[in-house]
Amino acid sequence: MIKKKYLLEGKTKKIYSTDNPDEIIIHYKDSITSLNGLKKELLQDKGILNNEITTLIFKFLKDYGVKNHFIRKINNREQLCYKVDMIPLEFVVRNIVAGSMSRRLDINEGITIDNPIIEIFYKNDGLKDPWLNYHHAVFLNLISYEELNKVNRIVSNINNILKKYFLDKNIILVDFKIEFGKNKKNKILLSDEISPDTCRLWDKKTMKKLDKDRFRNEFNDKEEVIDTYMEILKRLNAG
Amino acid sequence: MIKKKYLLEGKTKKIYSTDNPDEIIIHYKDSITSLNGLKKELLQDKGILNNEITTLIFKFLKDYGVKNHFIRKINNREQLCYKVDMIPLEFVVRNIVAGSMSRRLDINEGITIDNPIIEIFYKNDGLKDPWLNYHHAVFLNLISYEELNKVNRIVSNINNILKKYFLDKNIILVDFKIEFGKNKKNKILLSDEISPDTCRLWDKKTMKKLDKDRFRNEFNDKEEVIDTYMEILKRLNAG
Ligand SMILES: Nc1ncnc2c1ncn2[C@@H]1O[C@H](COP(=O)(O)OP(=O)(O)O)[C@@H](O)[C@H]1O
Ligand SMILES: Nc1ncnc2c1ncn2[C@@H]1O[C@H](COP(=O)(O)OP(=O)(O)O)[C@@H](O)[C@H]1O
Ligand SMILES: [Mg+2]
Ligand SMILES: [Mg+2]
Repeated sequence: MIKKKYLLEGKTKKIYSTDNPDEIIIHYKDSITSLNGLKKELLQDKGILNNEITTLIFKFLKDYGVKNHFIRKINNREQLCYKVDMIPLEFVVRNIVAGSMSRRLDINEGITIDNPIIEIFYKNDGLKDPWLNYHHAVFLNLISYEELNKVNRIVSNINNILKKYFLDKNIILVDFKIEFGKNKKNKILLSDEISPDTCRLWDKKTMKKLDKDRFRNEFNDKEEVIDTYMEILKRLNAG
Repeated sequence: MIKKKYLLEGKTKKIYSTDNPDEIIIHYKDSITSLNGLKKELLQDKGILNNEITTLIFKFLKDYGVKNHFIRKINNREQLCYKVDMIPLEFVVRNIVAGSMSRRLDINEGITIDNPIIEIFYKNDGLKDPWLNYHHAVFLNLISYEELNKVNRIVSNINNILKKYFLDKNIILVDFKIEFGKNKKNKILLSDEISPDTCRLWDKKTMKKLDKDRFRNEFNDKEEVIDTYMEILKRLNAG
């Protein structure tokens, strides 16, 4: 497999084509952003950690029957994946109240949500990634009602699998964001990444935050942020 | 039926108890508000017009099998209704892009929405009536998933009936807001009001706005606003 030409660059990853038109190389950068890209910094080795963490999680999910884009890890920062047409929606799953939901509805962080809450956001920088409901997503031609039903079932399934996966490592999966794409056969595949950048992960015993919220916090210490990512990787490898 | 004691007052209506504990009197005031109550004025006779318009629409809906709180009009400003436990949600239906949706998603006003969009908002002044999805509403104990399914079917049915009702009078039903409550037998009844305060209504020929948007517009002329409400009543009575 030959790395051919640079295709596109996002906030945390770069995409390259390969000699196989159905496969791409995803390169994990060290950049980290928050506030819709307004706050932006480099976190030494974050790309290496997230490439490895995502690899572990996508492999685990594949073992549990969740079809996804991951083929194999190539090196420290790169993985080979199936190329998909991304559905420009972020699916957010909430098991415990935190972040924007806590602020918007004035509910304390940490309250358990019995029926997990799924929210969808339109990946659109110009509109600042607005929140949508299913009707808006269909109206905007981003997805069909049938596909939404299908993806919702996949999302619930992934949540159940990952909640248990993390809990076995003494980590509470508070909430997370995932993205989907369609391969050339029009099959829906979990794509993009799952990492401390895209999940809220709390230590089960101390309830300490082991994720990007450490960076969102304005008093963050970069080394401390990277330490928590290393802690996550250590726990995932341990179990 | 005896008007007993004053129960509560909202932004546009007052509620009184009667000698029958299952029935209330709803009194239509002349006040009109926008921007979540920030802008507030009196529009002479608006209460009289909306009491009559809501009466015509709720009677029409009852004839079409839509169970609702309306019993009968008592006088110019008052109607007798079944008392319900209000579900603190506003159901907004959009047939054509306008207002907040146009701004939020940067889509021109006037574009047709093939599959009507239903949005739900939490009636909560402290939180400024935030937009919710179904999961949030259930989490907040406002309604159950089963009730949401039921209400959604009722909402679609009401939209189909009213779109045709207005079109027969050369009015386009652009969007509208409705509220529901549960009677003592736990039956879900359409409640509150349907009027130019709660609908966007455009003249079919000129596409002129015949509703509260005339008031929301900062250059409004109060007499002109009331004239459009009178025009709506005239057309509803004509057909
Ligand atoms: N399997 C895939 N095929 C094609 N594109 C993908 C795949 N997985 C992820 N992407 C896309 O790669 C791009 C780069 O990722 P990222 O840096 O996270 O971008 P963003 O700033 O949009 O979040 C994104 O547009 C993402 O949707
Ligand atoms: N049939 C009914 N039984 C009990 N309450 C009702 C009924 N219909 C409407 N209401 C309630 O009457 C109150 C007054 O109405 P309104 O002035 O529109 O209030 P608001 O400012 O909350 O919109 C609202 O709380 C509304 O939900
Ligand atoms: Mg991304
Ligand atoms: Mg009201």
